[in-house]
Amino acid sequence: MYFSTAVSEVVEGEVNLRGYSLREIMSEATYADGAFLSITGRIPTPGERRLVDAILNSLLDHGYVASTITAARYIASGNPQFIPAVAGGILAAGSNTLSPEHSYHLLQRTAELRGDESLEVGADRIVDEYVAARKRLPGFGHPIHKTSDFRADILFELADELGLAGESIKQFQAIHEAFVRKTGRTGIPINIDGALAAIGSDLGWSANQTVAFAVLSVLPGLMAHVIEEIEQNRPLRYIQDGEYIGSPMTEHLATTAATTGA
Amino acid sequence: MYFSTAVSEVVEGEVNLRGYSLREIMSEATYADGAFLSITGRIPTPGERRLVDAILNSLLDHGYVASTITAARYIASGNPQFIPAVAGGILAAGSNTLSPEHSYHLLQRTAELRGDESLEVGADRIVDEYVAARKRLPGFGHPIHKTSDFRADILFELADELGLAGESIKQFQAIHEAFVRKTGRTGIPINIDGALAAIGSDLGWSANQTVAFAVLSVLPGLMAHVIEEIEQNRPLRYIQDGEYIGSPMTEHLATTAATTGA
Amino acid sequence: MYFSTAVSEVVEGEVNLRGYSLREIMSEATYADGAFLSITGRIPTPGERRLVDAILNSLLDHGYVASTITAARYIASGNPQFIPAVAGGILAAGSNTLSPEHSYHLLQRTAELRGDESLEVGADRIVDEYVAARKRLPGFGHPIHKTSDFRADILFELADELGLAGESIKQFQAIHEAFVRKTGRTGIPINIDGALAAIGSDLGWSANQTVAFAVLSVLPGLMAHVIEEIEQNRPLRYIQDGEYIGSPMTEHLATTAATTGA
Amino acid sequence: MYFSTAVSEVVEGEVNLRGYSLREIMSEATYADGAFLSITGRIPTPGERRLVDAILNSLLDHGYVASTITAARYIASGNPQFIPAVAGGILAAGSNTLSPEHSYHLLQRTAELRGDESLEVGADRIVDEYVAARKRLPGFGHPIHKTSDFRADILFELADELGLAGESIKQFQAIHEAFVRKTGRTGIPINIDGALAAIGSDLGWSANQTVAFAVLSVLPGLMAHVIEEIEQNRPLRYIQDGEYIGSPMTEHLATTAATTGA
Repeated sequence: MYFSTAVSEVVEGEVNLRGYSLREIMSEATYADGAFLSITGRIPTPGERRLVDAILNSLLDHGYVASTITAARYIASGNPQFIPAVAGGILAAGSNTLSPEHSYHLLQRTAELRGDESLEVGADRIVDEYVAARKRLPGFGHPIHKTSDFRADILFELADELGLAGESIKQFQAIHEAFVRKTGRTGIPINIDGALAAIGSDLGWSANQTVAFAVLSVLPGLMAHVIEEIEQNRPLRYIQDGEYIGSPMTEHLATTAATTGA
Repeated sequence: MYFSTAVSEVVEGEVNLRGYSLREIMSEATYADGAFLSITGRIPTPGERRLVDAILNSLLDHGYVASTITAARYIASGNPQFIPAVAGGILAAGSNTLSPEHSYHLLQRTAELRGDESLEVGADRIVDEYVAARKRLPGFGHPIHKTSDFRADILFELADELGLAGESIKQFQAIHEAFVRKTGRTGIPINIDGALAAIGSDLGWSANQTVAFAVLSVLPGLMAHVIEEIEQNRPLRYIQDGEYIGSPMTEHLATTAATTGA
Repeated sequence: MYFSTAVSEVVEGEVNLRGYSLREIMSEATYADGAFLSITGRIPTPGERRLVDAILNSLLDHGYVASTITAARYIASGNPQFIPAVAGGILAAGSNTLSPEHSYHLLQRTAELRGDESLEVGADRIVDEYVAARKRLPGFGHPIHKTSDFRADILFELADELGLAGESIKQFQAIHEAFVRKTGRTGIPINIDGALAAIGSDLGWSANQTVAFAVLSVLPGLMAHVIEEIEQNRPLRYIQDGEYIGSPMTEHLATTAATTGA
Repeated sequence: MYFSTAVSEVVEGEVNLRGYSLREIMSEATYADGAFLSITGRIPTPGERRLVDAILNSLLDHGYVASTITAARYIASGNPQFIPAVAGGILAAGSNTLSPEHSYHLLQRTAELRGDESLEVGADRIVDEYVAARKRLPGFGHPIHKTSDFRADILFELADELGLAGESIKQFQAIHEAFVRKTGRTGIPINIDGALAAIGSDLGWSANQTVAFAVLSVLPGLMAHVIEEIEQNRPLRYIQDGEYIGSPMTEHLATTAATTGA
């Protein structure tokens, strides 16, 4: 066999999804269960289910303050179809937005630097490394939510209440404290990407599994914007506030002969 | 203002999502609620919530029997990153798969043909139109589930139990009956795309809103396959069972001069 | 065999591309030849080669006045990688921009309406049909180039000079004349999409083949914008001039019990 | 101004493309000129033009032996539209295929390791680093072209003939020699990705500029495959040779109560 998978098996009249009957999942489970099972391979505990629903609702929409939405609306303006615009919006998820994997890797690097020392020592070392390299720490700061990112706060509180907060959350918070202490900058709170990375890590998810839940969370809002853009029907939006800073139109091809290589 | 939206508003420390506080949605609602609110603009009733969870679980995975999955795995094989492969998998949703909008348009066309007549008359007319044009009816048939599509059956039963089944489901079923009566073909049941279109229509969703829920439903399985493909790390899969049916390699550029246009 | 293709065959040390050795194509042919051969199955004549180079240069860039570019730059702002941004920019090609296929279908519909009558009769009938349905004619008008689209003009003149102008160009021009005569609107010239459709049709290309050349033409400029955006390194651009027109944040989930369906 | 660009400026009746009139480019230049100008900011010399045409033809098609093609055909099988399938095929370009940027970064890392020493010392050091880390060297090896990659050979010869071969090509060849000497493996030649990186570097292109030309080169073949797939009209291809290696369908949700979190 060329391909092998542990996700599902389809036979006539049934789908085996990670050991469960899809009939049973459809009839009795919530989407939080179904998504958790598909992505992680098991059914969540009641506490995990509550936390996952909160995670899945945390990014439902942040509207124009999101490159994903903007990109999707411009695509829909040129090509007013649902599928290409949704796919294109997802492509804007990367190192500058919707990227818990970068925060996840920060945690992994911190663990390397920390070795057998305390969380605080790990935090000091990673902040020193980033400050020395003049690099922006992933998982911190938001253009609008400047004193704290309420979505991160709610998830951290909920994880704590449900007994699901572990060392990764503590480590991320220690990094924030070290950052404020060393730089004096207080307007750069842990953001939702950082929170998702820390919680995903505490739940035992890989970086990509964590991103999977983040992407599911943004999609309903992204989809709503795409549908709205198609219904508003303003064809061919384009950038209004751009300027040209290149050369004036004074160049010329030397001669036709030269340009055709003859 | 150039852009306007009714989806959300972001201010420091809060997001207004369709009139609700995102804080409250995160703290108290399930994802079915949050997605329903984002896409349709209101919170579901308890019955709608149960039906939406079943819809969102109906396509969690159908594995290799899906072009979306196949496309995504090939993309991840060349470019082992999560985001591009997920976006690329979504792009495979169209007239041949994951396309409740085509079934939705079938219902709209049936309503035109039916006018003030009965559902049965509408069904007869649409089947006649498709049979005469030798076109495949969207929303019918599945390569594996040949006698019935259990996912469609479960959704129809649940809609009925919850008192949410309306005229669109009945119309779709009447179309199926007319199709079997007129063509004698019994192995082509209403499939999940057809069921989603009929239920979406009965819930008052637009075609694109219906597709939105369908896409959310396939994503957890699609994401699981992408993660599995990246972890299996078999670089550069390619088609093994292809053949070349074109010209033998006997052609030549006339002369260099001709090809450079000199 | 599951897959079959007439495009190419790869064996050790050689590629047969539509009957030609890729070695020979690399060594002696221009890209216009190679692209023409790949897409249409034959080497262009000298006149076709000149016209194809002009076509391939016609859309090299139209900068901010293009949804494709805008979408791509927003994607690169969130996810500063070349490949996803280029792919996402292409997704913005559709019924409102970069869509010669819509103009191509206009020609096909005109041919149906015309039957055995003159080009002028075909033109009158298609304009009447669109005006009656209050639909915008594809292939006409541009937000900046209002009196004429110089790119269309250059291509038409070149096709004429090279003896490659055929009935489709004449038909498109007749449609334009009928449109001006019937509506009195003079600021809506044949645009580059319309010109590409007419020329592609006269060259014997299908609608998709015509779109293929149009997409190749926009890509160098699109790529240049993506690279520029990545190098400018302004993370997370978002829409600055948006407004919220939805409900105030006054709604509440009835009770927790209700929202969890208990 | 929020956006600024040096690529182009559009005014009524004219486009200034990097200092040149688009009218002049359309009327007198080849696509190799237009693409080179758009991406690099200047018109190529006659030698560069010949080399760029060869580069742009080097990847015209490698058919089924390419994840890009496979992904695109599966997308078109589900969603038989040109634009989404072409965009999706591009998304498969990454670390395992069509990725001259990885070879480009190999050259950059070699330069760091080499310092002021000879090309041979640089080559020894980079090979040692990769062999010690058990990492695959990017830019080497091909599943079909095992003794040498003729496309790389042709480009290197042509660059040499045209006087455009510089230190990067020599460095890449030295890395290959060191690799064969140290590992004894002779069936892993410099491949087309490695060649494109070396030549792009010698031409003064950045990594992304080099990838831009590589993507342009694959597109005509990719587009031809998409058109062929749409015309062959085999809806919903899926993987035939897959197997399920996960759990048997023996798991059950504990109770309905538990799964709804009540």
